[in-house]
Amino acid sequence: MEPKKDYHMTPEAFRLYGRALVDWIADYYERVEDLPVLSRVKPGEIRERLPKDPPEQGEPFEKIMKDLDEVILPGITHWQSPNFFAYFPANASGPSILGELLSAGLGVQGMLWSTSPACTELETHVLDWMADMLALPRKFRSDGAGGGVIQDTASSASLCALLSARERITGYRTNERGCDGRLTAYVSTQTHSSVEKAVKIAGMGREQLRAVAVDETFAMDPKALGEAIGRDRDAGLVPCFVCATVGTTSSNALDPLREIGRICRDEGLWLHVDGAMSGTAALCPEFRHILDGLELADSFCFNPHKWMFTNFDCDCFYVADREVLIRTLSILPEYLKNKATESGAVIDYRDWHVPLGRRFRALKLWFVIRHYGVEGLRYHIRRHVAMAREFAGWVEAAEDFELAAPVPLNLVCFRHLAGDEFNRMLLDRLNESGSLFLTHTTLDDRFVLRLCVAQTRTEERHVEEAWRLIRETARELAAEEK
Amino acid sequence: MEPKKDYHMTPEAFRLYGRALVDWIADYYERVEDLPVLSRVKPGEIRERLPKDPPEQGEPFEKIMKDLDEVILPGITHWQSPNFFAYFPANASGPSILGELLSAGLGVQGMLWSTSPACTELETHVLDWMADMLALPRKFRSDGAGGGVIQDTASSASLCALLSARERITGYRTNERGCDGRLTAYVSTQTHSSVEKAVKIAGMGREQLRAVAVDETFAMDPKALGEAIGRDRDAGLVPCFVCATVGTTSSNALDPLREIGRICRDEGLWLHVDGAMSGTAALCPEFRHILDGLELADSFCFNPHKWMFTNFDCDCFYVADREVLIRTLSILPEYLKNKATESGAVIDYRDWHVPLGRRFRALKLWFVIRHYGVEGLRYHIRRHVAMAREFAGWVEAAEDFELAAPVPLNLVCFRHLAGDEFNRMLLDRLNESGSLFLTHTTLDDRFVLRLCVAQTRTEERHVEEAWRLIRETARELAAEEK
Repeated sequence: MEPKKDYHMTPEAFRLYGRALVDWIADYYERVEDLPVLSRVKPGEIRERLPKDPPEQGEPFEKIMKDLDEVILPGITHWQSPNFFAYFPANASGPSILGELLSAGLGVQGMLWSTSPACTELETHVLDWMADMLALPRKFRSDGAGGGVIQDTASSASLCALLSARERITGYRTNERGCDGRLTAYVSTQTHSSVEKAVKIAGMGREQLRAVAVDETFAMDPKALGEAIGRDRDAGLVPCFVCATVGTTSSNALDPLREIGRICRDEGLWLHVDGAMSGTAALCPEFRHILDGLELADSFCFNPHKWMFTNFDCDCFYVADREVLIRTLSILPEYLKNKATESGAVIDYRDWHVPLGRRFRALKLWFVIRHYGVEGLRYHIRRHVAMAREFAGWVEAAEDFELAAPVPLNLVCFRHLAGDEFNRMLLDRLNESGSLFLTHTTLDDRFVLRLCVAQTRTEERHVEEAWRLIRETARELAAEEK
Repeated sequence: MEPKKDYHMTPEAFRLYGRALVDWIADYYERVEDLPVLSRVKPGEIRERLPKDPPEQGEPFEKIMKDLDEVILPGITHWQSPNFFAYFPANASGPSILGELLSAGLGVQGMLWSTSPACTELETHVLDWMADMLALPRKFRSDGAGGGVIQDTASSASLCALLSARERITGYRTNERGCDGRLTAYVSTQTHSSVEKAVKIAGMGREQLRAVAVDETFAMDPKALGEAIGRDRDAGLVPCFVCATVGTTSSNALDPLREIGRICRDEGLWLHVDGAMSGTAALCPEFRHILDGLELADSFCFNPHKWMFTNFDCDCFYVADREVLIRTLSILPEYLKNKATESGAVIDYRDWHVPLGRRFRALKLWFVIRHYGVEGLRYHIRRHVAMAREFAGWVEAAEDFELAAPVPLNLVCFRHLAGDEFNRMLLDRLNESGSLFLTHTTLDDRFVLRLCVAQTRTEERHVEEAWRLIRETARELAAEEK
């Protein structure tokens, strides 16, 4: 006997509220530009507005939508605002949001080929497309020995690359016997902190991670890398992994892949190339020099969820030899065995990353590529780079500001000449204004502002207004200090 | 100068296609019951239907929607079919799909409290709600020393638990110096393979993982655990981690938490409890005995994305002492520093898991809890358990079938009496019929069919029809064999 009410949302209600939510999102994008970019709530303020106890009885969806506006929205820092210039972006776009919606609606779990062949095959296919779109070396395509997979983040991709390196060099014995504390890894002083995290997770120990010096552009110094490797070999250690970055988080520095790659090849080290944000620039032939030498790498990743208008999470991780990755991460318990896997004719992506289960993330990437076309994606990348360079020109031309690093693409690192404390106050006041959101870093021990031009909807007028506000706020601050 | 066309999806188009997609999903749920559950495509078949090259120019959304029906849908194994009885489920529901849509629309990245306070605070709040809803020990709540976080999967939760155990017992020295090959970990022979994967990732080595014997219900034998720990201590090793399971993947066996917990407490080992699917049953007071002894555990996880109608991915991971987890995984580079973090008044969830970035996953969990209410969630859990027990009764009453394991909740392990090969053929023929999808395991070295009653929309008629088809197919097969 079915009771009258089975608590599920009826198809009619789903259509009704689904439409309401689509409209809410469309409205949100039409007004997000006018909202304060950085949320202004105080710690604990959102929780105070939430009921202490979960509801015993279900509540109408209208009430949830009301709370969305009244409780949640004030606690949102608007990553989708065209005035978001902080960190690296986490871009959404219309086709991507719809791809994520479809993924949720289909609700498939693609741990094995057989648990939804389309989830695996579309992913392989779209990652091969992306390899061509970025002109990656052919070895990273699935029709060779390599292939691509979607990971959640570049952090996870770095971890998988490091683990593969660890196993390759020890003949897969670390998986069996554990680390012995002799493996060493190399990054630059500017490499993303995720590699340090990965070295710790992998049981290799932070003391075995070398932070190689950088040159005046904040790019890894290959000579210093070679020397560090040599010192470790002399000490009886086993160098195994280098992470080079194409567009560091601090300043968008470009490590020299070819020189680093030659060292890695000569020395037998795994080279992972992290192009999290800037890899996307290789869509445009004129920016492909950033990946020069990538054919010497063992793995590469970039994040469409940063600069390619594809909702977080979507990191594309490529390996030149998929067997190493799979052998490093593979587990096959009885309850996952199936004919397709045993045939060897299919990819089971569960062996390509840490989690077992996986969403159908290729849909959103497919939607984005098809909606924009290669042409549309290139158009926006070029515009963003042009806007950043224009902004950099304004900084250079201004008497009271200076660039703090080269601007190879779309990130501008700059500072007011009045010193660290002044720049710190300037940053706070700018962000408190709500009109934009910038973040900072330190370069050469100095406090530096970062302006990243990469948000889906950022146009020239937003960058112009940002510069106007920065100058005006700096003038105000300077006047107050007198 | 803006060109006429900027390639973005216009707000009007987003409303139009968003509605079309919401309707497509609603239609899908109305017909999914009639689709063959397990996809029938052959390896490579989906890729063959996709164009070799990515589109140079953008394509109309109508064309993408058309390919959804013609190219993608045949390659889908329908996890949202009420006839899906395989593995453990990965349930979606109306409110959950809408929560995921909203998360994609807002597009915030919650790595830090300040990068969207609502993303962090709603997560903490809803995980405290869940702790109360499952009657977890108070120590797992955020207002004590512990707290909860959403991870992608139970695999990642196990890894984080293992890493915390590794660091706690070595005084955080493994993070610094690397593993020394002396740490040992303990699971049962029935524990999920993700723990073996985690032990390898963590650099501890599979040879240091002990698979403890189970009793006749396939639950871990605490005496055997104690002995294994003792043997390792005698050998000069350092026991550090036990994973107990509440509802194993193979047969839903319930490890005796209290006895295992006492051993862990006496011996100073970290106890992680994996309740990936079955933890949800603790919503109902009559099933809470499955978590008896959980107060002796250091960490616990369960997956609303399995049995609580919340789209994959959503694993709730709780620790009793959050400082250990944070100290294990924390990294704080300059570019992530901010006032809120420095104040110490906020949670930065980036330090609670492997990835740095994170989606606003609490939204879907919040939507589900509010839509169903505790009452509605309990209603479905009770129905699923009742249906599974009824099915188990039919198996027991049948002359030619037998149960292969106890049925504590909603998973039935059973087999035809005619032997492994017969059961294997039976499984294949059933799945080829398209009318349902079952998977298998081995228990006591015998091939066993698994029927998990947990899909959001499974009703009695689906379970009845499954049993009818199983019996009929077995009779057909038996007749053919004669």
